Amino acid sequence: MTHIEKLSAIRALMKEQGIDAYIIPSSDPHISEYLPEHYKCISWTSGFTGSAGTLVITLDFAGLWTDSRYFVQGPEQLKGSGFELVKLKVQHAAEYVNWISEKFNNGATVAFDGNLASLAVAHAIKSTLEPLNFTINGHVDLLASIWKGRPELPKTTAYTLPISTTGQSTQSKLDAVRSELKEKRVTAHLISSLDDLAWVLNIRGTDVPCNPVTLGFLYIATDKTVLFIDPSKLESKTVEELNGFGIEIQDYTDVRKTLKSLTASDRILIDPKRTCFAIYDSIPNEVEIVEAMNPSTLLKAIKNDVELQHERQAMINDGVAMTKFFKWVEENVASGTLSEMSIADHLRGLRAEQPGFKDISFDTIAGYKDHGALPHYKAEEKSNYTLKPEGLLLVDSGGQYETGTTDITRVITLGTPTAEEKEDYTIVLKGTIEGSMAIYTKGTRGYQIDAITRRPIWATLRNYGHGTGHGVGFFLNVHEGPHVINPSNVDIALQTGMISSIEPGLYREGKYGIRIENLVVSKDLSSNQFGDFMEFETITICYIATDLVEKSLLEKTHIDWLNNYNQWVYDSLEAKLSAEEASWLKEKTKAI
Amino acid sequence: MTHIEKLSAIRALMKEQGIDAYIIPSSDPHISEYLPEHYKCISWTSGFTGSAGTLVITLDFAGLWTDSRYFVQGPEQLKGSGFELVKLKVQHAAEYVNWISEKFNNGATVAFDGNLASLAVAHAIKSTLEPLNFTINGHVDLLASIWKGRPELPKTTAYTLPISTTGQSTQSKLDAVRSELKEKRVTAHLISSLDDLAWVLNIRGTDVPCNPVTLGFLYIATDKTVLFIDPSKLESKTVEELNGFGIEIQDYTDVRKTLKSLTASDRILIDPKRTCFAIYDSIPNEVEIVEAMNPSTLLKAIKNDVELQHERQAMINDGVAMTKFFKWVEENVASGTLSEMSIADHLRGLRAEQPGFKDISFDTIAGYKDHGALPHYKAEEKSNYTLKPEGLLLVDSGGQYETGTTDITRVITLGTPTAEEKEDYTIVLKGTIEGSMAIYTKGTRGYQIDAITRRPIWATLRNYGHGTGHGVGFFLNVHEGPHVINPSNVDIALQTGMISSIEPGLYREGKYGIRIENLVVSKDLSSNQFGDFMEFETITICYIATDLVEKSLLEKTHIDWLNNYNQWVYDSLEAKLSAEEASWLKEKTKAI
Repeated sequence: MTHIEKLSAIRALMKEQGIDAYIIPSSDPHISEYLPEHYKCISWTSGFTGSAGTLVITLDFAGLWTDSRYFVQGPEQLKGSGFELVKLKVQHAAEYVNWISEKFNNGATVAFDGNLASLAVAHAIKSTLEPLNFTINGHVDLLASIWKGRPELPKTTAYTLPISTTGQSTQSKLDAVRSELKEKRVTAHLISSLDDLAWVLNIRGTDVPCNPVTLGFLYIATDKTVLFIDPSKLESKTVEELNGFGIEIQDYTDVRKTLKSLTASDRILIDPKRTCFAIYDSIPNEVEIVEAMNPSTLLKAIKNDVELQHERQAMINDGVAMTKFFKWVEENVASGTLSEMSIADHLRGLRAEQPGFKDISFDTIAGYKDHGALPHYKAEEKSNYTLKPEGLLLVDSGGQYETGTTDITRVITLGTPTAEEKEDYTIVLKGTIEGSMAIYTKGTRGYQIDAITRRPIWATLRNYGHGTGHGVGFFLNVHEGPHVINPSNVDIALQTGMISSIEPGLYREGKYGIRIENLVVSKDLSSNQFGDFMEFETITICYIATDLVEKSLLEKTHIDWLNNYNQWVYDSLEAKLSAEEASWLKEKTKAI
Repeated sequence: MTHIEKLSAIRALMKEQGIDAYIIPSSDPHISEYLPEHYKCISWTSGFTGSAGTLVITLDFAGLWTDSRYFVQGPEQLKGSGFELVKLKVQHAAEYVNWISEKFNNGATVAFDGNLASLAVAHAIKSTLEPLNFTINGHVDLLASIWKGRPELPKTTAYTLPISTTGQSTQSKLDAVRSELKEKRVTAHLISSLDDLAWVLNIRGTDVPCNPVTLGFLYIATDKTVLFIDPSKLESKTVEELNGFGIEIQDYTDVRKTLKSLTASDRILIDPKRTCFAIYDSIPNEVEIVEAMNPSTLLKAIKNDVELQHERQAMINDGVAMTKFFKWVEENVASGTLSEMSIADHLRGLRAEQPGFKDISFDTIAGYKDHGALPHYKAEEKSNYTLKPEGLLLVDSGGQYETGTTDITRVITLGTPTAEEKEDYTIVLKGTIEGSMAIYTKGTRGYQIDAITRRPIWATLRNYGHGTGHGVGFFLNVHEGPHVINPSNVDIALQTGMISSIEPGLYREGKYGIRIENLVVSKDLSSNQFGDFMEFETITICYIATDLVEKSLLEKTHIDWLNNYNQWVYDSLEAKLSAEEASWLKEKTKAI
């Protein structure tokens, strides 16, 4: 079935059911970013494979609303699908809702599948459109009857992590969540988000590529904890261990039954951003619903010392793989045998040799030349470039190790860089350095660090269309909240122990892309009469190429930072490298 | 009646009426920052004269919740009043509500006068406390019977401004507001905020010191506009002019009657932050209330070219007054006849000599030595310092001219500065310069500029407890929204034509305070493939003292900015100064 045929089939059903606009959000009942095949509805319908977007289908228009990361990739993938790209002004904003409200100015019937939309998205749709005489139906899955051979939900085995890895027992985490529930005076709480579930239960799985999570719902009431999960995924020792914490196991599909049995005396906390509308709507009307962030989300973001120590170790292993990788690229590029896809595979192989490796943490972005200008590019057979001894190569990649999650971007030149390349690279590097060097007071939010990172880039009339950074999980999702370093007004302070990425960039469409990304940990620096000050500890360990640096554009503080960083990278990795590798890295990390 | 006696009288009434906690917010029915004497309830009750704070009185505790600007002044003024200072963690946050919720954990009766609380504050009180079994009564004025000789409401004459001053007619402004109302599909709108009213009607008054506004409410319905105002305040030609725009005049006290007459077919827009609870509560339940920012607030903030041209002229006049002032201080400090109060008076006199002068724009802060460390200090007889030829003097002042509002802070040394003073001064100056030099993309919010301004100050483990800047009116309030430059997550972009202050500082308690403040206009810079870039035009014209600068702490860009700025100040003012003044200023503005 072609995309055009799928679109026709959807429109036929819309006509049949009197639907004027059908919305397909990019999510699942767990509001995951990385979806099981079963829920890849946007890709199946339109061909667009990006991780963020929303389809809106009317009888005479079909559009994909997505953000600037996909302004190049989007139109390419949508070619011939019947869908057009609609550019979002604000990342993640529900701008299509206003579009719908303007298109149908006398009201209309709008439908979506409540399993694919977060409560927050459903609220946005309803609160805007219902007062304007729209009818909203959030329980319509038009794909169910059209999608032949739709993949089943995954059923991989889940496993628990020892306290020596996590630093905090499941009992202690349940207690911490319950203490927050008590403070909010709620009697029950449902966790739909898989990383929150994984954190609380110290459980991991392989249901979703790149994210080591297992499909389930976790219900935490005052005197009862239930894990809703396909029981075939749990070995008996895991069941025993969970039972030991007083956790009952019930079937994945039973979660709605439990919610439906709640009564007027219950007060349930759910996270509107991490709970789907279908789950929400199964809670009886008489139950008081408290909409708030999952308490586990903030608890999870603040890494304990055990996690941080493991993470630092994972960074050494990851740095070893990265070093071997760049050496190998450099030594083999002239052969004409390397391609974007083959180097991504090779890098995966090098990571897999490292202790505790479980998976990559997201699909590697190996963007050569103009492909580097697509911030979320993933090479495919038809786009795959062969590398030559010229131009810039951007590699954004990461690993899932049992002792931590990594995420790193580096850019190298495969030939002799142009003045423009060096200038752009140096200005981005300045952003990375100024963000990493930032000193800030307790309570500082990510949007403030975003501005500090962007300042030297803005000063040259340059900018990048994505955020500066995101939270990162501990052997969990590579994108993890609640904190984020971007311009939006997310009111979450950077707290001691939080891991974030700092990854400014520059993208010259048709030419190349630059992004230099490290992970950093927020930590206390010192206190005085003016306040409590914090700083970042950079934990990513991989040399930053200096042959692309235009030294005259840097101030002494930047040069010192760069030289110290590269020296520290060498010192941290030397012992794990062969003599030949170490001598290669010594050259790369020479002070400028 | 002493403050202790007032507190006893209030508590006696609380007992009589079964009130457990009585809240006295710092506002009036127009949610003004500068209050008519009639509404200075906090000052009357507790003696605290700061512009922001909330009193909470229980039978066994009486507290003033206020922010870091008043952490020194607060306790001094509250001494012996029976009130204690409670430090706010977040400026303007209703933290006392949580305090109440914790103090009375089985619920209690909480009361306040709905004329003094914005709807937003009332919402915060009700939404937190009502679910916890509290009873809230927002219609209790306990001061009415205790406050003998309470001042009447002001009745000064209001007057209109010509279009040559405002650049936009009342008709055009009414049309602009109505167009926003139409877009929001509302049938009615009530403006309570006096500066919004003044802007829409191009009307000014002298009802409140420092703010050139007149007390009134403006009701704008689809086919009707009513100004509720004491009719004795309008001359007949003003009434005629307003009638000419289709504006009816009704008595100030009739506003509630009009609101009460609304019916189920009405949909009214009110601004929850700029409308009091008493007004809100007089709207019948069946009327749909749309809570949103007054449309005029954003329209007003974006100055038109006529306003900006006038403002630039006002800045020259203000700069002349400031230059004469600092020369006079310098030449007379040795005489021992200058005091904080006398120099404030003298400065007012110098401004009054300037064309179009109407008033000062706020009470002058002349803080000598350790008084400078109180960011909102106002000298009074008992605190008044005599100036000597030593130490730092901070002067934060501004004028209301018929062609613009000014607000400027400068610090000068009256003797030989210490190394610490120079270092602190230079670091603050670096903040002012980096904020002023910032280049930013369209859509940038104030919190991003705040971070850019703070960065070099944070880098030295220093900070200031107030925001970096605020919007400024055009011959209107010196504090004007909706934009603000501070760390809070206010989601308002800085748009072309907005005026803001940039005023970082440093305060060494017991020693001195430093703040260097200019006003700036946001303007378009250029557009390219990376975005639309904006910059600030600095419009304040008064030399920045260089004898306090520790040049080794500045980079070349800072030094260039400072020298260019001072040269521009000289060039702009020279023609309006005497030869002697010009030669004095030439010396002050010499390049470093």
